[in-house]
Amino acid sequence: MEAKRSDCPIAAALDVFGDRWTLLLVRDIGLFGKHRNKDFQDGAEGIPSNILADRLRRLVATGLVVRRRYQAHPPRYEYHLTEAGAALLPILEAMALWAKDHIAGVRLPPLPGD
Amino acid sequence: MEAKRSDCPIAAALDVFGDRWTLLLVRDIGLFGKHRNKDFQDGAEGIPSNILADRLRRLVATGLVVRRRYQAHPPRYEYHLTEAGAALLPILEAMALWAKDHIAGVRLPPLPGD
Repeated sequence: MEAKRSDCPIAAALDVFGDRWTLLLVRDIGLFGKHRNKDFQDGAEGIPSNILADRLRRLVATGLVVRRRYQAHPPRYEYHLTEAGAALLPILEAMALWAKDHIAGVRLPPLPGD
Repeated sequence: MEAKRSDCPIAAALDVFGDRWTLLLVRDIGLFGKHRNKDFQDGAEGIPSNILADRLRRLVATGLVVRRRYQAHPPRYEYHLTEAGAALLPILEAMALWAKDHIAGVRLPPLPGD
C-alpha cells in the first residue's frame, strides 16, 4: 500500500480501497458470491490478471479478505470477506443507489438470491 | 473519463469517482468548506497541482461540481458541489465510520461547524 496521506479517516479508507478495482472485487465476493480466481476473471469488467493478483494480495494484506485453500494438489484458494470487508457492503449499496439516481442510463440489476 | 467497464451501477459509480483523489476533493468542498484552488492545495494530503487541475476538470465534466467565477480580472473560480455531488457526502461519512472501526489508529476529527 502507498504511504499514508493524512490522518483523515476518509483518506485512510481510500488508501485501502480507493482504486478502480478493489471495491469491484469486494462486490464480486460479497454480492455476487464469487470466490475463485476464475470467477473473478469471468467478470463483466474483464480485470487484467496481473491487477487481479495484485488486488487480491492487497485485500488479504489489509484484512478485508481471507484466503482459504480448497484443494491441496495443486494448491487452489478461495477468497472470502472478513467482517471488515463485509462492513463495506452497505457502502457499495449506497454507491449503486447513487449511480442509479445520478448517472444516465444506470439501473439496478437483480442480485443472486433476489 | 475512461471507457465504461460494464453495466454494473457500482462499476459506473467507481468510473466517476473511484480514484485516490476525487472523493477527497468532494470532501474538501462538502465537508471542509473549501472552494478555491489554493484551499485544495493547502490540504493535508498535498495533492499535486496537475492532478488537482485534472480532477477538478473531471468533477465539473461529470456534473458533481460547478465552477463559478468570483473575480473577473484576472478570472478566478470557486468550486461548489451540485446536488449529485452533495449526494455523495453520506457515502463519505460511511467511509469515515468504516475507517474508524476497521483501520488501526484512525479516529474521527471534528469538522468545521461541529
